[in-house]
Amino acid sequence: MTKTQKIWVMNRYATGPMGDDNLVLREEPVAEPKEGEIRVRNVYLSVDPTNGPWLSPNPTYLPPMAIGDPARGFVIGVIEKSRAKGWAEGDVVFGLMYWAEYCVVDPEKVIFMMKMPPADDVSLEASMCALSMLGHTAYYGMLVKGRPLPSETVLVSGAAGATGSLAGQMAKLAGARVVGIAGGEAKCRTLIEEFGFDAAIDYKKGELTQAIAAACPNGVDVFFDNIGGPTLDAALANLADVARVVMCGSISSYSNLHDARAAVSGTTAAAGQQAPAIPSLKNTLGIFFRKATMEGILVFDFFGSRQQKKCARHLVQWYREGKLRYRSHILDGIESAFPAIRMLYSGDNQGKLLVRVADFAR
Amino acid sequence: MTKTQKIWVMNRYATGPMGDDNLVLREEPVAEPKEGEIRVRNVYLSVDPTNGPWLSPNPTYLPPMAIGDPARGFVIGVIEKSRAKGWAEGDVVFGLMYWAEYCVVDPEKVIFMMKMPPADDVSLEASMCALSMLGHTAYYGMLVKGRPLPSETVLVSGAAGATGSLAGQMAKLAGARVVGIAGGEAKCRTLIEEFGFDAAIDYKKGELTQAIAAACPNGVDVFFDNIGGPTLDAALANLADVARVVMCGSISSYSNLHDARAAVSGTTAAAGQQAPAIPSLKNTLGIFFRKATMEGILVFDFFGSRQQKKCARHLVQWYREGKLRYRSHILDGIESAFPAIRMLYSGDNQGKLLVRVADFAR
Repeated sequence: MTKTQKIWVMNRYATGPMGDDNLVLREEPVAEPKEGEIRVRNVYLSVDPTNGPWLSPNPTYLPPMAIGDPARGFVIGVIEKSRAKGWAEGDVVFGLMYWAEYCVVDPEKVIFMMKMPPADDVSLEASMCALSMLGHTAYYGMLVKGRPLPSETVLVSGAAGATGSLAGQMAKLAGARVVGIAGGEAKCRTLIEEFGFDAAIDYKKGELTQAIAAACPNGVDVFFDNIGGPTLDAALANLADVARVVMCGSISSYSNLHDARAAVSGTTAAAGQQAPAIPSLKNTLGIFFRKATMEGILVFDFFGSRQQKKCARHLVQWYREGKLRYRSHILDGIESAFPAIRMLYSGDNQGKLLVRVADFAR
Repeated sequence: MTKTQKIWVMNRYATGPMGDDNLVLREEPVAEPKEGEIRVRNVYLSVDPTNGPWLSPNPTYLPPMAIGDPARGFVIGVIEKSRAKGWAEGDVVFGLMYWAEYCVVDPEKVIFMMKMPPADDVSLEASMCALSMLGHTAYYGMLVKGRPLPSETVLVSGAAGATGSLAGQMAKLAGARVVGIAGGEAKCRTLIEEFGFDAAIDYKKGELTQAIAAACPNGVDVFFDNIGGPTLDAALANLADVARVVMCGSISSYSNLHDARAAVSGTTAAAGQQAPAIPSLKNTLGIFFRKATMEGILVFDFFGSRQQKKCARHLVQWYREGKLRYRSHILDGIESAFPAIRMLYSGDNQGKLLVRVADFAR
């Protein structure tokens, strides 16, 4: 009897807003690991803003998936069977694999793959929410690229989000004054009370450029951006001298990635495509006037670097010291994964969005 | 009646160890400021390690003084007479001027010149010890170049010294773990109790390379060096991956600057020169193996930059918040200035060495 599993599979490219059948759930046999491979029994699938752009037929920072491919995604689980040296059964692993109940991969060929602390020491939830991809992204973007100095002013957009909340906490560890942008009073309260931000801006409450100016009287020294579009534009109007703008994400553009590509490449959107174009930026001269820098970061560039090894050690240390907090929003059952992408775009999630596909057991 | 003053003047170059008459004290008329100039009544002269190398006939990072020149030095005082726009009588100013009771200069032509907070707000002593050249040097070297990340390990040599103690405090503000090297138990205690260092190494107590390894089990991420020579070599043997070595000073080489020049340029020391050569470094391959960087910093490169203006603001803020402490060692009378250089080389001073040449009064 071959064991079967449920697995999300690429079915139809999204060339405008996301549809209902870009990914479909299939029943497939669970494969046996070949020499050099491991089989991971997944516990959580990660639902991230970046899952949206990956539905596009165009390359993002990764090549597009092919129709019929397992749906690319970050997962955490336990090695159930190993034929790879250095990877043992029972090890907790996190990686860029695919949304399924089981993943069979060569761990050396996975673009982002790391062993996490054992679960009796640090929960898989904490590993997923703070110590793996998200924590490394925040560390790389905020500390390595943003480089906030003590008493500098740091602004974070999407600050109540999974990466933004970590980035803000790291800026506090570096001695900066940290201001977060989030949607709604509850999220703004969370920023201050739970994540230790110094101030919060509710973007639903009026004009953002003015609100940033009021919250950052000496200008913005580091802007860690998860949102893009008009949010980025408002920050660009408020830069301090030698500011660093770190583009971590641009979720305001993702719901319409085909248009975004068209805007970037200069080609026109496909005929019949009615979705509105990505708003253009008006304030980029601020980068010039303030002698600032603006840089897009991709955690994969950091992964495997020597500095990243220190990062991994420090993340666990900070988490144990209670200096790195997170909120999780857990959905149950693999069926929830694909529809959950939309929650991220509407901001309806209350913390890092995870899908539990199994209980943890070694 | 022309008013006269005492002034130190360049008399004889030091081509080996410092002598007794490299500078001589003269009595000279106090000049009237011309259009664009100010006259500063000095309150403190600063005695710094760099005053030694300036006695050399060879260029350092500045051209050599000419025989008969007023002795170059950092001073702080009050503008007594101004014919320069933007500089008012009563302003407290710090600058690279010369060791005299009065300095007459064009403030726009002075390489490092800044207005300090009024003395009823921040004392001239604090301005001299923490908020002007020394504070800017520590900020530039430690925070801008060293860039310690939270929980990284920072090592400072000459840590009880004027610049080292400030640099260590700034690394603490940035969330790093800070280890200082100093000479003797009293200084080591000061590092921890007064300046908030996490650990101290007494270099007089045995082998330094081993002591650094023991105090820095994860290696040294940032080394802020004021000493050079064997101290630097011991640190180079203990670098962490992607470490940053910031050469702020090299006081172990200054007592013998003529030889240092010879060693650098490859020429032989002048005949009859018996002073021992500068010890060479054995562990520079550590820079390569650890993918580290090593950089000499000079505060003048930073001065006038956009980032430096933020630095000036933050230094005053930190001082007012009690986060930037200093120790001063004040000698009275302009006669003390030149002989005091030697105290720095023997480490006999207990804090930033200042010579008071007048009381403060506006």
